[in-house]
Amino acid sequence: MGGDDAPAAVLAGALLAVSRDAELEVVLVGPPELAPDLPDRVTVVAASEVVGMDEEPARAVRAKRDATVRVIHRLVRDGEADAAVSIGSTGAVLTAAVLTLGRLTPRPAVAVIVPALAGPLVLLDAGASSDCTAEQLLSHAQLGAAYAEVALGLTDPAVGLLSVGSEPGKGDQLRRDAYLLLEGSALRFVGNVEGYDVPLGGKADVVVTDGFTGNVLLKGMEGADARAGGGGLPVSAVLLGVDGVSVVGHGFSDPEAVAGCLEHAARVVREGLMARLRERLTVREVAS
Amino acid sequence: MGGDDAPAAVLAGALLAVSRDAELEVVLVGPPELAPDLPDRVTVVAASEVVGMDEEPARAVRAKRDATVRVIHRLVRDGEADAAVSIGSTGAVLTAAVLTLGRLTPRPAVAVIVPALAGPLVLLDAGASSDCTAEQLLSHAQLGAAYAEVALGLTDPAVGLLSVGSEPGKGDQLRRDAYLLLEGSALRFVGNVEGYDVPLGGKADVVVTDGFTGNVLLKGMEGADARAGGGGLPVSAVLLGVDGVSVVGHGFSDPEAVAGCLEHAARVVREGLMARLRERLTVREVAS
Repeated sequence: MGGDDAPAAVLAGALLAVSRDAELEVVLVGPPELAPDLPDRVTVVAASEVVGMDEEPARAVRAKRDATVRVIHRLVRDGEADAAVSIGSTGAVLTAAVLTLGRLTPRPAVAVIVPALAGPLVLLDAGASSDCTAEQLLSHAQLGAAYAEVALGLTDPAVGLLSVGSEPGKGDQLRRDAYLLLEGSALRFVGNVEGYDVPLGGKADVVVTDGFTGNVLLKGMEGADARAGGGGLPVSAVLLGVDGVSVVGHGFSDPEAVAGCLEHAARVVREGLMARLRERLTVREVAS
Repeated sequence: MGGDDAPAAVLAGALLAVSRDAELEVVLVGPPELAPDLPDRVTVVAASEVVGMDEEPARAVRAKRDATVRVIHRLVRDGEADAAVSIGSTGAVLTAAVLTLGRLTPRPAVAVIVPALAGPLVLLDAGASSDCTAEQLLSHAQLGAAYAEVALGLTDPAVGLLSVGSEPGKGDQLRRDAYLLLEGSALRFVGNVEGYDVPLGGKADVVVTDGFTGNVLLKGMEGADARAGGGGLPVSAVLLGVDGVSVVGHGFSDPEAVAGCLEHAARVVREGLMARLRERLTVREVAS
């Protein structure tokens, strides 16, 4: 039921994804009458409630036990699905995922793959939480490195810290503290990177920041791309740091974008995202 | 002596500016032998030292009393020039301006004019200081409003607070605190704006943020514009909150860009920037 063109775009996207991937099975969650005539490998689980874009997500998700965004995460928790895919509200997905799946780390992060000029990179946190400590930036970096290994097929990805200059002392107190923690970690830390290194790429495979800065930067890049008449800056978002795979698509997703989210979820499941995340987070506990 | 193409681009830019503006006088500061044959209204003041781009700006500016960036601000302090214009290092300009001119507010801010799709707007702080309080964001807003009145010719400009959602509660603790201060101020506060509202415009004439976020956003927009093959996102920067007009040009400025900086400085001086800044800051003292 999520996104501006639901349910039509979601249904069409699901059909597109199963037609392209002979192994993929999609469980649609929502009112069954909206999807009457389905092919093999597409089934429906009924859910009667919806969290609207005009509702305060955290409150609405808690209040609505049978909301689609809660049911998809229950299917993952109960082993009936390998990944949850939702189109629309990141805030609602975050609340439902934490509530239902539980956390791997105190602060989950939204990671996006930015199609930078020099090649794709992972940016996180793109908006899961605004206030942040240096330890949480280290945790974000570990989550992001695991995700880059799986989603971008990299070995030991280069991790950069988003700041306002490339020298070690640059940035606010949070960045200066995080720099020292990252330098002492098991990650391949390449130092500070700057705002233009995210759209242009080439400096780091994983760019780490707090959810406030990450969200402002991502939206600023989207706006600048639109202003320049660019072809859009497509991003796939995944919620890292919860105990299960949860992918969030953009609110104005068309069928192609919905299919892309499903394919992305399938890929990270098949490549063993959850095992890789646990491995990276274990390294941290040993190192600290 | 500042910028990648100095002194040639600086000299050519000065000649261009005086040829266009019959009232403009330019004082070039640097080694006199570099500018031997000058027309009327272009004079030279000798300065023997230069702060290099590879030096730590704050330290180098303090150590070099006769650096060009210090001499231009002394000319302003002593009433021999109406504005200082420097191409290159914002950090060096900030240190020299504070040292020589003194402060109007505890935290000066770098303000840039962003040529947003819906029309130009003022973004500040674009990088003068990283750590920031809610009171300083209010002060930035007052500086930015005064600058928008003068530089964009607006009456009572609309001020927005950069955050991660348009609702009042959105953002980190700093933004939630600043929201309340801005709401209670004499400014025309229009609430939160988001990252894409800066390149796209239309929501606020002045967008207020801390220097860390502002710098990351500005560079991210520049990079996204370059990635999309855009025509560049030209910005003129001015240092607000010091006791005098100080304009900073981009490090890779060509003659046209240097002339633009000189013309911009002349315009804000003629429109009475300093008086407007004092007026806005007085309103604040009365209001608080």
